[in-house]
Amino acid sequence: MADPRFFAVAGPFTAAELAQRTGATLTGDGQRVLKDVAPLDTAGPDHLCFLDNRKYLDALRQTRAGACLIHPDLAKEAPKDAVLLVTPEPYRAYALAAQAFYAEAHPEPGIDKSASIDKSAKLGEFCRVDAGAVIGARAELGTRCHIGPNAVIGSGCKLGDEVRVGSNASLSHCLIGNRVRIYPGARIGQDGFGFASDRKGVVKVPQLGRVLIGDDVEVGANSTIDRGAGPDTIIGPGTMIDNLVQIGHNVQIGRQCVLVAQVGVSGSTKLGDFVVVGGQGAFAGHLNIGSGAQIGAKAGVMRDIAPGERVVGSPAVPVKEFFRQVAWLQRMASKKQGD
Amino acid sequence: MADPRFFAVAGPFTAAELAQRTGATLTGDGQRVLKDVAPLDTAGPDHLCFLDNRKYLDALRQTRAGACLIHPDLAKEAPKDAVLLVTPEPYRAYALAAQAFYAEAHPEPGIDKSASIDKSAKLGEFCRVDAGAVIGARAELGTRCHIGPNAVIGSGCKLGDEVRVGSNASLSHCLIGNRVRIYPGARIGQDGFGFASDRKGVVKVPQLGRVLIGDDVEVGANSTIDRGAGPDTIIGPGTMIDNLVQIGHNVQIGRQCVLVAQVGVSGSTKLGDFVVVGGQGAFAGHLNIGSGAQIGAKAGVMRDIAPGERVVGSPAVPVKEFFRQVAWLQRMASKKQGD
Amino acid sequence: MADPRFFAVAGPFTAAELAQRTGATLTGDGQRVLKDVAPLDTAGPDHLCFLDNRKYLDALRQTRAGACLIHPDLAKEAPKDAVLLVTPEPYRAYALAAQAFYAEAHPEPGIDKSASIDKSAKLGEFCRVDAGAVIGARAELGTRCHIGPNAVIGSGCKLGDEVRVGSNASLSHCLIGNRVRIYPGARIGQDGFGFASDRKGVVKVPQLGRVLIGDDVEVGANSTIDRGAGPDTIIGPGTMIDNLVQIGHNVQIGRQCVLVAQVGVSGSTKLGDFVVVGGQGAFAGHLNIGSGAQIGAKAGVMRDIAPGERVVGSPAVPVKEFFRQVAWLQRMASKKQGD
Repeated sequence: MADPRFFAVAGPFTAAELAQRTGATLTGDGQRVLKDVAPLDTAGPDHLCFLDNRKYLDALRQTRAGACLIHPDLAKEAPKDAVLLVTPEPYRAYALAAQAFYAEAHPEPGIDKSASIDKSAKLGEFCRVDAGAVIGARAELGTRCHIGPNAVIGSGCKLGDEVRVGSNASLSHCLIGNRVRIYPGARIGQDGFGFASDRKGVVKVPQLGRVLIGDDVEVGANSTIDRGAGPDTIIGPGTMIDNLVQIGHNVQIGRQCVLVAQVGVSGSTKLGDFVVVGGQGAFAGHLNIGSGAQIGAKAGVMRDIAPGERVVGSPAVPVKEFFRQVAWLQRMASKKQGD
Repeated sequence: MADPRFFAVAGPFTAAELAQRTGATLTGDGQRVLKDVAPLDTAGPDHLCFLDNRKYLDALRQTRAGACLIHPDLAKEAPKDAVLLVTPEPYRAYALAAQAFYAEAHPEPGIDKSASIDKSAKLGEFCRVDAGAVIGARAELGTRCHIGPNAVIGSGCKLGDEVRVGSNASLSHCLIGNRVRIYPGARIGQDGFGFASDRKGVVKVPQLGRVLIGDDVEVGANSTIDRGAGPDTIIGPGTMIDNLVQIGHNVQIGRQCVLVAQVGVSGSTKLGDFVVVGGQGAFAGHLNIGSGAQIGAKAGVMRDIAPGERVVGSPAVPVKEFFRQVAWLQRMASKKQGD
Repeated sequence: MADPRFFAVAGPFTAAELAQRTGATLTGDGQRVLKDVAPLDTAGPDHLCFLDNRKYLDALRQTRAGACLIHPDLAKEAPKDAVLLVTPEPYRAYALAAQAFYAEAHPEPGIDKSASIDKSAKLGEFCRVDAGAVIGARAELGTRCHIGPNAVIGSGCKLGDEVRVGSNASLSHCLIGNRVRIYPGARIGQDGFGFASDRKGVVKVPQLGRVLIGDDVEVGANSTIDRGAGPDTIIGPGTMIDNLVQIGHNVQIGRQCVLVAQVGVSGSTKLGDFVVVGGQGAFAGHLNIGSGAQIGAKAGVMRDIAPGERVVGSPAVPVKEFFRQVAWLQRMASKKQGD
């Protein structure tokens, strides 16, 4: 069970209720009462577990769990007395069930007395503004937004409904959709890395664009998204950005992309939809990355990538080619002189 | 036109005024009135555009822009009715023109009532201290400094004139020149990663140096610069540091270097002047990197680099050698067994 | 001498006192009065220096230092009139001596009037809470904790004794041991990167674990440690984490590991004890890294690593093999066609 210092558990739910919430097909006693989610190996009779990996079939066979979310192909392996919630997507169903038990409560609406909110800012209904948060002139927040402690919303920023901004995050020059989540320490909207430099000195190029963030986006802790230089920097709906990611000015990212921690995207590069980028992967500037492309961890992408292409390495090459090169080099370099 | 939520446009200016401000030579009607900057393809008769890349010659020929900053070699390609501002450095001139239209106004001087300023701190004239900012004992700020919301200036820090510190940034143990810009969330002056470790445990080595930052430096969002262990960590004038860059203790960086996002410089490494480091490039400790060296993105530098040398790869080798190796490996590994 | 703007020097100490504090064996006048530490080349008669690298033997021979911490094998090279503090670990001894001269004073206990502390939070004796800091409901702090300006301690967090949290850092969902140091801007306890994603959209997986941090751990500036998804994320005692490091959910790190700047550890990977990871090194998820393993800078680890194994490269291979491959590729690719 999750530590009650930090988490409040809802429920209990019957197996039938959870089958409905997760879209699973119920097999067994729909009235079985379930009080929590738990892993296969520690679950007890009033817990719901899930299995989506054959590696854990042994744990499934021995589980004491009261109910289990499971793929139809594996259902026959479950203990006879377990209630089964059968679904082709057990992990997704688990997420929905866990959300039922551990719904993130919107905090009590209100504005902490130590928050600084400009008189010209507009806040929608039921917003919560925590201690030390600062909201600038003409900023607009939708309903049920939550601005965390010491977060800063710059002048003119516009946030949709149910946006959550973590502690100590900074926003400026941005328009943000609904249900967006900005994690602690993220920096959004500062001016990009634009200047003309020569031996006479450095001249800054005014950065005149914005950051536009679609619905349901997440921006991880301490990640940075620079605003556009003239065009906007754009993050499409449903895109998930992990911690310590850098997004340069004028970058456009499509819908439901996944950028794992410490990725870097240089200025003016465009990613299509459903692009996945592994940790520390990076892109040169002004590239086009097709929808559905998969970029391996630590890849250094220096050319356009076709839709659906899978690459890795630096400079990035197709995955098969990369591992062929790795294997060949290993074999050749280990041969003795004279072989 | 830039979004008026975030940007106020100055002007209008005549073409002659802009020629003077940018150092360009005017060809055509100096009284042409210009109200904004714009890209070649969307500019109208009261806009100033620029061209510095032959790739956009077609857009130039079709532009409706009232005036254009352009290189002398390309001037003849411009539409007959466009006023030309001819200059060997159109991008630099554009930066100056855009600064004229979009000058960054210094905010109204004053101290927000929620800021915490130690009685012994000294602030120069016309400083602005935003909500929640904290300024420690004996800190000294020059004139026209701007300390952003929830930024923290530690005890004893000294800032020159017109220094801007972004929201939620943290400074300690540092002396900072004039016109320096620290972006949101940057961390400057914390103690470096110094300790003696063995099986008996870890003993911290007191970090007794400072961070010295020259005039006109920029430190990007969420970048980190540790103070020296005994010597100082030094950033030379005009050096531009992008987001999420790490600078270790005792590092010395010369003047007008450029460090792109996510670069890491290990302790005691020295960079000369005008060194450029691509994104995610990194240096081992105690190296000497000559002036004018160019370090490619993702390079891992493990040896000293001569002035003007261009390297890439990990371990970093000269650029030509790197790409020869890449090409050779690709060719050899793709040969069928028995070739 | 360290800049008195930032550092207060204690002492003076006699050579005999310093020998005792550092566990060194005294040779010479134990009553020699020492007022500060200094490098070999700038030290004067009332300074203590140290030597632990034969490279600096010439500087030793010419030093004017009053006393020197030195390895028994090198003691005979020191000037005749220098007092020697002989020890097999001169750097560790220097750390202890420097701590004597530059003890980090615990700030005056008390709570700044601009701090926001929930009524249900419990603070031990002698805590210091700086301006703008926020401490949430039911949080518990031990004795002599120091919460820096604008730092945020989330609801329910528990800190041991003498924990220091830097300015603008954010903690949530964590239990923290004694003498832990969290640097400015670090983010600890936010929910990990967990979601089920398909073409129907993204479903967040509730992250129900915590972050557990052992005694004497350091977490560097702007580093991020996500809480567990169900299991906890665990950092063992004495582990040193540098700046801009990413630790994913469910990661377990043993005791006294060293993670240099910009390292990334993907979810559910386990590191044993005494593991050292060079800058920008990274791990895929679900790996086991044995105790005492050494992972080179920029390594990309894609498989389990045996205890004590030394690897580098991406994908990481044993160090000898890596450099053999590098050398072989360099030799072969530089041969002329037809060689």
